[in-house]
Amino acid sequence: MILIKYERLLSTLKSILLENGFNHSGAEKCSKIFSENTLVEVNSHGVNRFKLFIEYVKKGHVDPKAEPIIINKINAFEQWDANLGPGPLNADRMTERVMEISDEYTLGCVALKNSNHWMRPGYYAWKAAEQGYILICWTNTIPIMPPWGGKIPTTGNNPIVFGVPRVDGHIVLDIALSQYSYGQLANYARDGAELPYEGGFDQNGNLTQNAKDILQTKRPLPIGLWKGSGLSLLLDLIAAILSGGKSTFELGKNNVDSGMSQVFIAIDPKKFATSEIIEKSVNEILNYYRSSKSLDGNDISYPGERIIKNREKNLKFGIPIDENIWNGILDLGGKN
Amino acid sequence: MILIKYERLLSTLKSILLENGFNHSGAEKCSKIFSENTLVEVNSHGVNRFKLFIEYVKKGHVDPKAEPIIINKINAFEQWDANLGPGPLNADRMTERVMEISDEYTLGCVALKNSNHWMRPGYYAWKAAEQGYILICWTNTIPIMPPWGGKIPTTGNNPIVFGVPRVDGHIVLDIALSQYSYGQLANYARDGAELPYEGGFDQNGNLTQNAKDILQTKRPLPIGLWKGSGLSLLLDLIAAILSGGKSTFELGKNNVDSGMSQVFIAIDPKKFATSEIIEKSVNEILNYYRSSKSLDGNDISYPGERIIKNREKNLKFGIPIDENIWNGILDLGGKN
Repeated sequence: MILIKYERLLSTLKSILLENGFNHSGAEKCSKIFSENTLVEVNSHGVNRFKLFIEYVKKGHVDPKAEPIIINKINAFEQWDANLGPGPLNADRMTERVMEISDEYTLGCVALKNSNHWMRPGYYAWKAAEQGYILICWTNTIPIMPPWGGKIPTTGNNPIVFGVPRVDGHIVLDIALSQYSYGQLANYARDGAELPYEGGFDQNGNLTQNAKDILQTKRPLPIGLWKGSGLSLLLDLIAAILSGGKSTFELGKNNVDSGMSQVFIAIDPKKFATSEIIEKSVNEILNYYRSSKSLDGNDISYPGERIIKNREKNLKFGIPIDENIWNGILDLGGKN
Repeated sequence: MILIKYERLLSTLKSILLENGFNHSGAEKCSKIFSENTLVEVNSHGVNRFKLFIEYVKKGHVDPKAEPIIINKINAFEQWDANLGPGPLNADRMTERVMEISDEYTLGCVALKNSNHWMRPGYYAWKAAEQGYILICWTNTIPIMPPWGGKIPTTGNNPIVFGVPRVDGHIVLDIALSQYSYGQLANYARDGAELPYEGGFDQNGNLTQNAKDILQTKRPLPIGLWKGSGLSLLLDLIAAILSGGKSTFELGKNNVDSGMSQVFIAIDPKKFATSEIIEKSVNEILNYYRSSKSLDGNDISYPGERIIKNREKNLKFGIPIDENIWNGILDLGGKN
C-alpha cells in the first residue's frame, strides 16, 4: 500500500479520462466520483476498477461522449436513455434530475435504460443527502447469482441504496444482494482465508465458507437465502418495466457488464418537516439502534459510519492504494 | 387440521367483528382480509392472529371505528393519520389512495402514522397488482431483533413488500427482515426440529439452527446479517420521517404492537407502457430466473407462486385450519 493524496489521485484520473475521449466537464465529474469512492476506501468501485473502466471505453462498451436524454415525462415520473454513456456520469445526472422532480412533486422517480456500471451507488445517495433528500436507487446487473434452489446464475446481485440525510453524517445503506461480492470472494480465495460467514454453495450443494469453492461453482449466496433471491427478481422486474430497458436476462446475452437499467426515487422531506424535527427523529432512532449491548465491546456500527471515518483519515494522511493498482493507473497515461 | 369453506370463514369472522364494534363496511373488508390471508395459507396473519386482534380491539389498542384522515397533501405525497384504527383497514385504504395518487402523478407515496398491525402486506400488493399497479410498501415494528453485532433487540423486522402485476399470477415478494419470524421459531421449538438454516444466536453468541435457543436469547438473525440489520434501520428511519409518526424506538416504549408508521409507494406502468409489453417483459424475466437448473429436480419457485396454488386448492377443497384455533374463534361469538 502506498499513500496517495486526494488531489493527486483526482488530477491523475482526470488527465487519463481527458486522453480517452471525455470532455472537460465529464472528466472532472467522473474523476471526482472514482476519487471519492477511493477516498472512502470503496476501492473496488474506485481505483481498483478504473483500468477496466478505461478498457470498456476503449472497447466501445462505454461511450465517453454520450449523454442521457429524456424520452418520456409523465408528471413525477421520467424515463431516460443513457445511450451507453459512462455509468457514473449518468447516475450523477439522474440523481440531480430526480431531486429536481421531487422539488416539484415532493417525490420523483427517474428510470434509466442503456446505462453502464455506476460504480458505488452510495456516492449518489450521499450527494442527495448533502442536499437534504432521501434517495432510494437500484440497478440490475448481468446474471451472477443463482436464484434460491438453483445451480446456474440467472439473476443479478442488483445493488440497492437507501440514503437519509443527517447533520452529523448521513445514513446510507449501500448493499448488493449477494452476501459477498465476487471481488471479496477473490480476496479471500487469494489469501486462503475462510469467509467469516457462509457465502455460497460448494460442489456438493452445501453451504460453505470456502471462497475458492464458491468461485468455482459460481453460486454465491443471496442475502437472506430465498428472501434476497426473490428481491433480486423484483428489483430486476421493476427496473426493466419502469425504464423499458434491458433485464438481467437480456444483459446476460452479451455477457458484457453494460447496458443496465436503473431506478432513482427521491423524496424531499423539507417539504413537510423542519430540519430540526427530522434531525431529532433521526438521531433518536440511530441512538436507540446503537444502544444494543454489543457482543465484542465495540460500538454498534451503522450504515455510512465507516465512510465518514475513512474520508476524514484519508484526506489528512493520504489514501492507501495498492502499489500495483496505482502503477497500472499510471501506465494508462495522463499527467501526474 | 379441519377444512373450513371460505364463505363460512368469511361470515364467521364478519359476525364476530360486528359484535366487537366494527361497522358493516369495516367488518366486511376486515373479515375479507383475514379470510383471504388464511385462504392462501398465511395463517400466521390470518385465523391464527384473529383472536389476538379481537383482544387488541377489546383492550383499546385497535379502535374499530377509527378511520384514517389526511393531514397533509403536497402533490404526489400525502401524510395520513390512522388514529389507531384497524391495521388491515388502514392499509387497504392507503393502498387505494396511493393508486389514486399515481393515477394523477404516475407515482405516488402515502405515509401513514398511528396505524396497527396490517397482517399480511402481500394482500395489499396483490390488490394493487390486480389493478395493474406496482406497489412497494413497508412498516416498522416494535424492537424484536438486535442490530448486527448487538445483543439487545433495538430494531424491527420491518416487513417490506414489492408487487408486480402479471396476467398469469402476480409476482409479490412479502418478506420480514428477520430470517425466521418468531411464529416460525415457536413452531420449530414446539416440534423439537432444527431450523433448515441458521436463524439466530445462542447464549454463547454463536449462530444456531436451534429455535429454542433463539427464543431464549431473543436474537433472531437479520437477513443477510449486517445487510438486513442496516436495512431495518433505514426502513424505520424513512417510515418515521415521512409519516411524522412513531419509530421502532418509540413503539418499544409501550411494548404494545400498536401505533406503527407505514409507507406506500405505487407506480402506474400503464401510463408509459402497454400491458402487452409489460407482460412480455415480465414473463421473459421470470422464465429466465426459473431456468436455473434446480438442486433437487423441482422447479425454481418465485415469490407469490405458492399463494396462487394455495388459493386455488383451498377454494375448491376448503381451507386447512388448526382445530384448536378454529374453536378459539368460535368461542369469540358470532353466528356461523
